[in-house]
Amino acid sequence: MKYRVGIDLGGTSAKIACVTGGWKIVRETSVSTSGFPNSGDLARRISFAIKDMLGKDQAERIGIGVAGDIDPDRGVIRISPNLGWKNVPLKKLFQRHFNCPIFVENDANAAGWGVYKTQAPKNISNVIVMTLGTGVGGGIILNGRLYRGATGSAGEIGHMNIAEKGPLCNCGNRGCLETYVGGPHLIKKVRSGLGRGVKSSLQAQFRENPAEITPYLIAQAARRGDRYSQSIWEGVGHALGLAIGDLVYILNPQMIFFTGGIAQAGPLILGPLWRTLRQRAFKTPVNAVSIKVAREASHIGVLGAALL
Amino acid sequence: MKYRVGIDLGGTSAKIACVTGGWKIVRETSVSTSGFPNSGDLARRISFAIKDMLGKDQAERIGIGVAGDIDPDRGVIRISPNLGWKNVPLKKLFQRHFNCPIFVENDANAAGWGVYKTQAPKNISNVIVMTLGTGVGGGIILNGRLYRGATGSAGEIGHMNIAEKGPLCNCGNRGCLETYVGGPHLIKKVRSGLGRGVKSSLQAQFRENPAEITPYLIAQAARRGDRYSQSIWEGVGHALGLAIGDLVYILNPQMIFFTGGIAQAGPLILGPLWRTLRQRAFKTPVNAVSIKVAREASHIGVLGAALL
Repeated sequence: MKYRVGIDLGGTSAKIACVTGGWKIVRETSVSTSGFPNSGDLARRISFAIKDMLGKDQAERIGIGVAGDIDPDRGVIRISPNLGWKNVPLKKLFQRHFNCPIFVENDANAAGWGVYKTQAPKNISNVIVMTLGTGVGGGIILNGRLYRGATGSAGEIGHMNIAEKGPLCNCGNRGCLETYVGGPHLIKKVRSGLGRGVKSSLQAQFRENPAEITPYLIAQAARRGDRYSQSIWEGVGHALGLAIGDLVYILNPQMIFFTGGIAQAGPLILGPLWRTLRQRAFKTPVNAVSIKVAREASHIGVLGAALL
Repeated sequence: MKYRVGIDLGGTSAKIACVTGGWKIVRETSVSTSGFPNSGDLARRISFAIKDMLGKDQAERIGIGVAGDIDPDRGVIRISPNLGWKNVPLKKLFQRHFNCPIFVENDANAAGWGVYKTQAPKNISNVIVMTLGTGVGGGIILNGRLYRGATGSAGEIGHMNIAEKGPLCNCGNRGCLETYVGGPHLIKKVRSGLGRGVKSSLQAQFRENPAEITPYLIAQAARRGDRYSQSIWEGVGHALGLAIGDLVYILNPQMIFFTGGIAQAGPLILGPLWRTLRQRAFKTPVNAVSIKVAREASHIGVLGAALL
């Protein structure tokens, strides 16, 4: 049989999956990617894993989602800080091992495409998928197609400006959306708050082992009524509300999906988000958008890559 | 002969033009629109003016650009603060007088389309046209088509968030791009500065008649070396740089055009704008965009309407 193959290529691992025409994942595998400074070696290692997974079956097409600045036309990674790569002709490297069509795309675009294809109602054609995880990325679907822009760089919403003099971002600028929403920023903020001695049910855990303070725990504490943890998610929702206000004014989408680990806080974020969003003066585009947490966040990247 | 007819319908006047298949304006007229609380009366008045202008010729199609929240599918003005109208079925009102196809569109969308069709190079398909005037609006062209979004509200870039606690905007929110760039906001800021006694070559004019302080004069003073006036345009450029940074990250356009009165300050804005824009960390989308002041700003609204 022939299958679509999806690869979600990240800084620590590459998730790989076989996907049917009916968009079902039938086989999965993964490869560790840390310690592969040579991109050709990693491409060979992943290709072997794909062939192992396929057995007697064949790849109909291969889609690869990669965190970084990607040129989807040429299939080149311009720069991927997570992989430590620059100007890697990824498509060519995989063509050494496979004869089928190969597509390379930014990972947030791939995840966005996966959510759109598998979770958006049929009559919906303008959608933004925001990946809220370690980083914050976006996939934009306009008129039913993945929108890439002039150089495949569209949807870089994690670095929208929230406050010019806000916290320092990994990108080098200040006050990007990611500094209010990204996992490591949240953890740092909470640990610093707990270290200063704020009142919180997380204090016991923090004193025992600060490394155990994760977004998952902060969400749990908030759900159990911890005011400090709730205020953290209110900050996340408010920043998202400001950014989404701009996105709604600019793109007037029908739906926005959240995916990624931070999105699992769900209602803790959505409440304050909508309070901020409703402060926008023009109601038509605000009322037109629905905002949801996407299902199956853990597989959406590799599924989206397979559907590219 | 048959002509395309364009109408740029604003709060003080409606500009009307006959346009050839070669996108040339061959006849023009205008109608005062203030004091027409009844939309049917104004539509009749404009229709008579069009028939006068056409003489023995005929309208092939009529396009109308209107400031406000427009439903282009139904040809309805949802709300136009400038005209003081709500839920006006403009297309229907004009269909009483004409048999040809009639298109109603937000005025910034119409102007954007006009600039795109007449001034963008042929191979360019992703363009943002920003109207910088009394208000700040945008027309977005993606993949060679005017992008409207779910409810025709896309491109409302004048109310993007620049600073959450910034100046109060006409829309009711604070810190919108328009409060840093819109003509009345600039004038108010400069008059207040001059009133406080800042050192500026505009002081003589201000003491004689504060009402004569216009964006045109502020630009003139800046060009002649007035530091205070230059700092005003630096503020405009910086705010535009922040907003355009977001637009470039989100949409990765090939070109951005400015039109409208404020855009005529040209290099006074573009210098500081690029300084702010170049601070963005991801260079690929920033290097991919070119930013220009559009030609023939005074006719682009009515021309764009005719080409809808």
